[in-house]
Amino acid sequence: MKTIALLGSTGSIGVSTLALVREFPDRFKVHGMVAGRNLALLAKQVREFSPRCVAIQHEQDVPRLRALLGKRKVEILHGESGASLVASAAEVDVVLAAIVGGAGLMPCLTGLLAGKEIALANKEALVMAGDLFVKAAKQKGVRLLPVDSEHSAIFQCLQGSHRAEVDKIILTASGGPFLKAPLHRLDKVSVEQALKHPNWKMGQKITIDSATMMNKGLEVIEARWEFDMEPSGIEVVIHPQSVVHSMVRYQDGSILAQLGIADMRIPIAYALAYPHRLKGSWRPLDLTRHGQLNFLPVEKKRYPALSLAYTALREGGTMPAVLNAANEVAVDAFLNQRIGFREIHRIINKTMQKHSNRCAKEVGDVLEVDRWAREKTASLIHQ
Amino acid sequence: MKTIALLGSTGSIGVSTLALVREFPDRFKVHGMVAGRNLALLAKQVREFSPRCVAIQHEQDVPRLRALLGKRKVEILHGESGASLVASAAEVDVVLAAIVGGAGLMPCLTGLLAGKEIALANKEALVMAGDLFVKAAKQKGVRLLPVDSEHSAIFQCLQGSHRAEVDKIILTASGGPFLKAPLHRLDKVSVEQALKHPNWKMGQKITIDSATMMNKGLEVIEARWEFDMEPSGIEVVIHPQSVVHSMVRYQDGSILAQLGIADMRIPIAYALAYPHRLKGSWRPLDLTRHGQLNFLPVEKKRYPALSLAYTALREGGTMPAVLNAANEVAVDAFLNQRIGFREIHRIINKTMQKHSNRCAKEVGDVLEVDRWAREKTASLIHQ
Repeated sequence: MKTIALLGSTGSIGVSTLALVREFPDRFKVHGMVAGRNLALLAKQVREFSPRCVAIQHEQDVPRLRALLGKRKVEILHGESGASLVASAAEVDVVLAAIVGGAGLMPCLTGLLAGKEIALANKEALVMAGDLFVKAAKQKGVRLLPVDSEHSAIFQCLQGSHRAEVDKIILTASGGPFLKAPLHRLDKVSVEQALKHPNWKMGQKITIDSATMMNKGLEVIEARWEFDMEPSGIEVVIHPQSVVHSMVRYQDGSILAQLGIADMRIPIAYALAYPHRLKGSWRPLDLTRHGQLNFLPVEKKRYPALSLAYTALREGGTMPAVLNAANEVAVDAFLNQRIGFREIHRIINKTMQKHSNRCAKEVGDVLEVDRWAREKTASLIHQ
Repeated sequence: MKTIALLGSTGSIGVSTLALVREFPDRFKVHGMVAGRNLALLAKQVREFSPRCVAIQHEQDVPRLRALLGKRKVEILHGESGASLVASAAEVDVVLAAIVGGAGLMPCLTGLLAGKEIALANKEALVMAGDLFVKAAKQKGVRLLPVDSEHSAIFQCLQGSHRAEVDKIILTASGGPFLKAPLHRLDKVSVEQALKHPNWKMGQKITIDSATMMNKGLEVIEARWEFDMEPSGIEVVIHPQSVVHSMVRYQDGSILAQLGIADMRIPIAYALAYPHRLKGSWRPLDLTRHGQLNFLPVEKKRYPALSLAYTALREGGTMPAVLNAANEVAVDAFLNQRIGFREIHRIINKTMQKHSNRCAKEVGDVLEVDRWAREKTASLIHQ
């Protein structure tokens, strides 16, 4: 039996994780949940899964959640400190870190420092503070298990291999909804169009990140830390069908690939049951149903956000945290129709240009830069 | 340093193996070679690689080989017993078993019984006597390492996994030169047309086996023994580009696949250096150069030989040996233009129908049935 602290229970990863807990009640139980503002769903989840504690984003929502839960016995915490308490509770074996964006960093890190295994869906934690994160994990002897379908695929393709014999990590990218759109029309795409991901149903922020391919950029940075790979050893290839979730090329020139249906329960289950694989109720992949898989090089002009991510990764220090913060603010502005689609990357680039890069010695440095970048990006948008 | 007995040095696998030995002289050396009738090439190989002993098929060729080699110090043996001596020599670490067809069985088995690691390209050994072979390997604690690109792929995809969690082994098949030919025209295809394999350059026998898909059938039987998998757990899928060499589907519904260029040095190197991968002079796979990979179900009417192989595997006993022997004789007759392409499977089927299946308790039983099937097939062709 594995006891889970679920950070981000009402998001799409959280919901998929709970579906797994529902399907495998003898393997998993939920000790604590962390959520944002979706109190109705959280209350429903609490009634079904009976966690001992929950943490929500805002203190002022606590009475409303309490009212929704009636007499049910559950400790209600709030804010970053509440989330961190849930992640580091003594009963917890594994933290499923699925809070979107920089807000997930501290609770996840607190869980790690408390010696919990980390199943990581919150790629921003590694993007912002990969070096610190990986050092802390090593020091604590804690295992980082990837949950992103791409990184889970890579992790699977690395099993039973010798690390020194890995030549390249190859992340696949669907190319998003604008893979074939004429370049000159990208300035005018609507929020609705950008939210139409061809293969996966995901949250809004990650769906826009898929359209700009910043999501793949963040994944490149995540892979750099998760698999201790130099930037030059990480490649992105367009694969519109999203059937091959990612690949590893070895020094003998051959490639191992992991393929599957678009269902996040599979990589989540792999992370939670590792090194075992669970036989779930989802359908297995039938390749003949797909028929055709394509692989294309990335058109750099179409996806400038990906180049920005490589730049931030190569420059290192606090630059990836700036990239991430600026992206969050810019995507939010796009979703609220305050900027156009192609302004997302331009504004991130401007924020990065304004940043005096430095070494991140502790997480405080990262959080300070994160704040600075958010304000700077907001003011650039305001102009 | 690994010392190799190379059975079948002048065939395509043998030549590729020697290319590896040439490239990695600090890792591999050749103690002995076994060849058939290509004395000129064998003599050249002996001059380059200086084995201590060689064995050729026919005694009457010994003086000619001796003459070709001049004063070079090398023991020359002949026949099956000579080949078996080479395979079991005390200095040998690994037997690279690449003699085509049933002729490779005894030398390979002798090597195994002498405790040598077996790198197996001679699938017929497992087809004829898989049960006996696998039992002997277990008893001797000897490792069987697959060399066929498909089985090497499966072996790679199984690394670091739990055997009980394997759901299906999926062998890919190119479909050969007649994947899209109208069915009614298959009766009239020429030897030349059948020898045009779309992706691989191989020996004549295996190329015809690819066109009929008997090769895949033999590989299904090979996989059954190599990976201890029931026939119902082994599937074949058409993949015309031969980039994905084969796959394993796990019980979580996801698939691991191994992909590579069409170069036998890669699986041979994996078998010889296992569990390591060598960085060779061949080019790595670049998926964007291929662009597109297709997967189709097998059309049973087009490839009746595949169904015959499944039938033989399910019936068990000596039936797979009959399948193999009848196929060898029928393919030879086709290559000599004595029968048509579509008669190959019809004649194999007839031979199988005439066979009273029985349990193979020892290799003598298998060899007896092999002889019977060859004679029966020859007489059916003669009619």
